[in-house]
Amino acid sequence: MSIDFLALANPGVEGLHPYQPGKPVEELERELGISNSVKLASNENPLGLGPKARAAIERALPELARYPDANGFALKAKLADKLGVHREQLILGNGSNELIDLVFHTFVSPGQQVVYSQYTFIVYALATQAHGAEAVVVPARDFGHDLEAMAAAITPATRLVCITNPNNPTGTFVGAAEIQAFMDKVPAQVLVVLDEAYTEYVAEDERIPSIDWLARYPNLIVSRTFSKAYGLAGLRVGYMVCHPELVAVLNRVREPFNCNSLALAAAEAALDDEDYLNQAVELNRREMARYEAFFQEQGLKYIPSRANFITLDLQREAGPVYEALLREGVIVRPIAGYGLPTCLRISIGLEHENQRCLEALAKVLG
Amino acid sequence: MSIDFLALANPGVEGLHPYQPGKPVEELERELGISNSVKLASNENPLGLGPKARAAIERALPELARYPDANGFALKAKLADKLGVHREQLILGNGSNELIDLVFHTFVSPGQQVVYSQYTFIVYALATQAHGAEAVVVPARDFGHDLEAMAAAITPATRLVCITNPNNPTGTFVGAAEIQAFMDKVPAQVLVVLDEAYTEYVAEDERIPSIDWLARYPNLIVSRTFSKAYGLAGLRVGYMVCHPELVAVLNRVREPFNCNSLALAAAEAALDDEDYLNQAVELNRREMARYEAFFQEQGLKYIPSRANFITLDLQREAGPVYEALLREGVIVRPIAGYGLPTCLRISIGLEHENQRCLEALAKVLG
Repeated sequence: MSIDFLALANPGVEGLHPYQPGKPVEELERELGISNSVKLASNENPLGLGPKARAAIERALPELARYPDANGFALKAKLADKLGVHREQLILGNGSNELIDLVFHTFVSPGQQVVYSQYTFIVYALATQAHGAEAVVVPARDFGHDLEAMAAAITPATRLVCITNPNNPTGTFVGAAEIQAFMDKVPAQVLVVLDEAYTEYVAEDERIPSIDWLARYPNLIVSRTFSKAYGLAGLRVGYMVCHPELVAVLNRVREPFNCNSLALAAAEAALDDEDYLNQAVELNRREMARYEAFFQEQGLKYIPSRANFITLDLQREAGPVYEALLREGVIVRPIAGYGLPTCLRISIGLEHENQRCLEALAKVLG
Repeated sequence: MSIDFLALANPGVEGLHPYQPGKPVEELERELGISNSVKLASNENPLGLGPKARAAIERALPELARYPDANGFALKAKLADKLGVHREQLILGNGSNELIDLVFHTFVSPGQQVVYSQYTFIVYALATQAHGAEAVVVPARDFGHDLEAMAAAITPATRLVCITNPNNPTGTFVGAAEIQAFMDKVPAQVLVVLDEAYTEYVAEDERIPSIDWLARYPNLIVSRTFSKAYGLAGLRVGYMVCHPELVAVLNRVREPFNCNSLALAAAEAALDDEDYLNQAVELNRREMARYEAFFQEQGLKYIPSRANFITLDLQREAGPVYEALLREGVIVRPIAGYGLPTCLRISIGLEHENQRCLEALAKVLG
């Protein structure tokens, strides 16, 4: 008996190609016969787990055979306090990826349109396809969001617009005035996910008052994560902030125990660890400058970035350079899958990791 | 500006009522002004985190700022070895709840039917509703699955049948011959989820060779979890075993980093901790006998259970008894939401916890 499972699947699944995550370091080292490689491929926090988060995990271990708190009471209370919102405006997820999928599960059906930019986080394209909806991909402007064109692309069939700011994989940033002008044009029945996964890396004077806007735009959903500046990618925890009635609808579809107990405990502690956060942001600022200086010196083209990575445009097929870097033990991210075959995305690492990356780049390119 | 978010939501969301998890102990104690309460409400492993799992978590902490291995290589390798299947037959989830939802996301659309039994795990009803599909709820026989009636309920519109065995919240068990007879009647294009969350508690000579059946029934999906006998409910990790082509289709829709790093590490270690597992199963067997003896002595009606809980049928409204037990500091689970308003589900705890539960029951009922 043989079954064509794809034929049984929902509209959209057949056209779907799963997300290709970066290979685990051990796997690559095994393949290449190298060791001590440097991984600058997944926009992770190079400082590793922070001390307060670690202590919170240790404290939570004795209760690990219990189910997590399905309502994330303590983490939501701390977040609400920090952000100046009500707990009822918060929803927690198994990484912000799960919450993005949850928005799609809850609101997006076949026949509807989802608007997003060229060169943006690939999860939006995957989710749109998986839900059998129509992707309206708006051409980028200077590798970033063209919000005027995105507003113009909205039709009566549009259910959702997704904006990643700073953008991944390009690091581009759209300022507050531009986003507010965009929001003013979006009809109320069109939801807007503003994905601020990298927002902690943006200088404070440039940061967008997105949370303040929630009172004005009930269709706005701000998405954040603990996977980047807070250093908890391995634990999976993110959150969205939006209108409480929107949270209530999402909660109908959310799996009750979607956030694990250690993620809840570690994220709560991480919010109190300002030293760790400041150190991460300061390291990123300083080391970003090192990459920029090197690229300028070498006459290499790059996309100025507000995030924890920088994207280099080699203006030729990047694959061979990626492979050559690998053989030097430096793992970066080729982003041909994002429509940028001449680019490599480099996550900002520790000083010695970045030094090694730049030495390898100099060797490989020169 | 006010938005009717429910009106924007997908078919089915409006009729959905979110799963009501048991209250966290701290919350209940606060409400009741009690302390030292005993929680026997969520079918958790009373032994707490096992030593090997704990050691694996400690070892994994330094890498926690990294994303998890999206393919769960090491855990799948160990599971494949243990179960005698290929790695390509395995898919890992953020608890088996996520995998159940994933099967629905991938295969269930409005207009299709999902068949399941009265008095079974409520996630099937929720997922059916959330996907706008039609629930075909087959009346239970002696509180358990009536597989003949379930087979007869399959129509050309049926996409999925869900069987929990042992069943939650009743603990009933269907033997191998009956399930195999059922599978022989199910058309190939109807997928069957056989949810064996509690299978480790079934005596070995009764256990069902469900994994062996996969070669014969490519439409069979066996679902298991580390949340029960393996004591990892707080970490969220479960798995499904099925046809490799079915896994490949599910992987198109799965979120890449759905399993957190500590869950992967702890589950792998837990599979090696036979002492812990044996201790959990033996404790459960011994303490289950204590409940049965007490109920028989007291002339109380209960549903014989093969799982890690036992359901007591008070043959009158159970709510007041639940409330009275709470005031004694004993938290059990009322299951009126499952259509069993006269029943209380009691998870098997440690010896002293069960003793306390029975003393409280004797006091409250007598």
